[in-house]
Amino acid sequence: MRTLITGIGELTTNVPAGDDRTGTRRDAAVLVEDGLVAWVGDAADADMTADEIVDATGGAVLPGFVDSHSHLVFGGDRAAEFEARMAGERYAAGGIRSTVAATRAAADAELRERLHGFLAEIHAQGTTTVEIKSGYGLDVATEERLVRLAAEVTDEVTFLGAHVVPAEYADRGDAYVDLVVGPMLDACAPHAKWIDVFCETGAFTVAQSRRVLEAGIARGLAPRIHAGQLGPGDGVQLAVELGAASVDHGTFLTDDDVAALAGSDTVLTLLPGVEFSTRQPYPDARRLIDAGVTVALACDTNPGSSFTSSMPFCIAVAVRDMRMTVAEAIWAATAGGAAALRRDDIGVIAEGRRADLVLLDAPTRVHLAYRPGVPLIDRVWKDGVLVAGGGSRAR
Amino acid sequence: MRTLITGIGELTTNVPAGDDRTGTRRDAAVLVEDGLVAWVGDAADADMTADEIVDATGGAVLPGFVDSHSHLVFGGDRAAEFEARMAGERYAAGGIRSTVAATRAAADAELRERLHGFLAEIHAQGTTTVEIKSGYGLDVATEERLVRLAAEVTDEVTFLGAHVVPAEYADRGDAYVDLVVGPMLDACAPHAKWIDVFCETGAFTVAQSRRVLEAGIARGLAPRIHAGQLGPGDGVQLAVELGAASVDHGTFLTDDDVAALAGSDTVLTLLPGVEFSTRQPYPDARRLIDAGVTVALACDTNPGSSFTSSMPFCIAVAVRDMRMTVAEAIWAATAGGAAALRRDDIGVIAEGRRADLVLLDAPTRVHLAYRPGVPLIDRVWKDGVLVAGGGSRAR
Repeated sequence: MRTLITGIGELTTNVPAGDDRTGTRRDAAVLVEDGLVAWVGDAADADMTADEIVDATGGAVLPGFVDSHSHLVFGGDRAAEFEARMAGERYAAGGIRSTVAATRAAADAELRERLHGFLAEIHAQGTTTVEIKSGYGLDVATEERLVRLAAEVTDEVTFLGAHVVPAEYADRGDAYVDLVVGPMLDACAPHAKWIDVFCETGAFTVAQSRRVLEAGIARGLAPRIHAGQLGPGDGVQLAVELGAASVDHGTFLTDDDVAALAGSDTVLTLLPGVEFSTRQPYPDARRLIDAGVTVALACDTNPGSSFTSSMPFCIAVAVRDMRMTVAEAIWAATAGGAAALRRDDIGVIAEGRRADLVLLDAPTRVHLAYRPGVPLIDRVWKDGVLVAGGGSRAR
Repeated sequence: MRTLITGIGELTTNVPAGDDRTGTRRDAAVLVEDGLVAWVGDAADADMTADEIVDATGGAVLPGFVDSHSHLVFGGDRAAEFEARMAGERYAAGGIRSTVAATRAAADAELRERLHGFLAEIHAQGTTTVEIKSGYGLDVATEERLVRLAAEVTDEVTFLGAHVVPAEYADRGDAYVDLVVGPMLDACAPHAKWIDVFCETGAFTVAQSRRVLEAGIARGLAPRIHAGQLGPGDGVQLAVELGAASVDHGTFLTDDDVAALAGSDTVLTLLPGVEFSTRQPYPDARRLIDAGVTVALACDTNPGSSFTSSMPFCIAVAVRDMRMTVAEAIWAATAGGAAALRRDDIGVIAEGRRADLVLLDAPTRVHLAYRPGVPLIDRVWKDGVLVAGGGSRAR
């Protein structure tokens, strides 16, 4: 089966061309075969003998979004808590522990059905690769369930037993870390690729975070970290020292943090949905990019601090409020996410890479920021298979 | 044909009930007949003999959005100008005059096809009533075309010949106003309901704005105004004096402006997409609502300052950045828009009102702000007819 997508007005390849890191081509075509990109070139040179021909005239094509940070396996929601927070009211019944309780109480079938609902939702919004973290179980049995369920739908599974200290270990954080690096890691490591920890005042100290990450590394997991969400700390330096693939949040970073990141292979993953939904100040992406830091964008979909699953929304906010150019934001949401997952087979449209593609109902990728909130995703292919869209393209 | 929508977990009626201006009901049902709401009540009391039964279990229902401010008839777009502005770069070829040139050059068929594309797009996002302004023609023939085309798709047509002084009248603003209140008004009034003017430094003075609005009123049009977008001015006082249905923008308002609005029947329509897309500071909706001003939300869809057409996006931004509660934002996007159009047959779900309804793929309306950017509109009825949706309801 060979599918040719042709007449593409604007193709973002992310294969650098001169000064253009996004490798933009006009009047282009992409040939897909066996789930991979078989050829990229000018539409005029396309092989029109393909089994299927998709006319993309008037539309822009870009790599599928790589959402490198999500928490898609959980029970319940926290809409009432969100509503109260936005109204400046107190809300006693919420917090992460309410999600932990709802998740522990949910059966596998319920969590699985919901997870598949989220997958359909993100495909419809152009995301073709999603990382999924555990972290709402916080006991051995539930954390094992969460990584196992996540592994049913993605290769990018992260064990985040060290998300927060659960109520039953209040004031005994070190004892909880013993559990995480012992029996919980034993149960979860076989299902996971990544080890993660929430290194922040009120969650885990740098010493505890080091224990968690080093234990995961010893079990063959690769490290990533939540740091700098609520204030500056030593999490970034730890991540760089351990060769973490990504530091996520980075709302508060010192100049030393920025310099360390710029001199490393560690990506800084910005999560605009969190600042949007918590009314925190936005980090300045310009400061990072101008210093040479590799920046990714992700949704951090979770019921507490960021329940968006829309990469286009995150792109629009990153442009408006984090001062990214449109090209930088698009790159960060595709190739940047791939870098944050240490992947080179996605986030780029080139021969031999996975055929993960988004066709927009818009003439340029700029519209993703120019038309915030408007559903502009027309069709989405993952491994060459159409996973969303196929509806009308009115304009 | 009688359609029953039942099992509604949360129904927003906007029929005030005690302290709840949004008149929220649980486990409710709505019966639709002949394009109108025939009955609203508890699901347990619903007449199950209807011709069609829609199971809304797990979903929230609210009135269709009333978008009381748009500019949907125009040629071209200004994506490159937007991209440059966001990058902090100069862009000489843009501005409203570039849209005027593209609009004048576009054939009716092209403008009509695009307008129908926008209508499908807004229906899919839950909008069931849209006001459409002229204002990208700025000559008699083109302005007449724009109001005529708008009148093909909505009853809420606004003649905005006084949008900006066109290049050919540079430094002759009063002469252009002569044209607007003379032959242009003659040509456009038969197609329009509203007269509007952009009262702002750099556009039209208060004296010019008064001439425009009073001429329109004399021709049977009802007044509304653009004011306070770029700085404070006397436009608000003029609008209140003339009994305008709405002042739109209101980014900059004096305390006297707020007091005048609070003591009047004039709505203040906030346009969050404009501040989002121009990086202007957001106006404080709390100040307005707490003073007793009636507030509406609208998209201001236009290619220059706000190309979103998403009322859910505007709700989310109004909650985050204008400090509205979720209930206030939902009310402003439905009943508030209706008030800004002096309509009492829309924006409310009650017996005898139009059956303009939105079913969300979410358990509560809170999700419109809680899940920014996520397409949550499941089905949309306008005058009882399904105009969007009918797809899966995965959760």
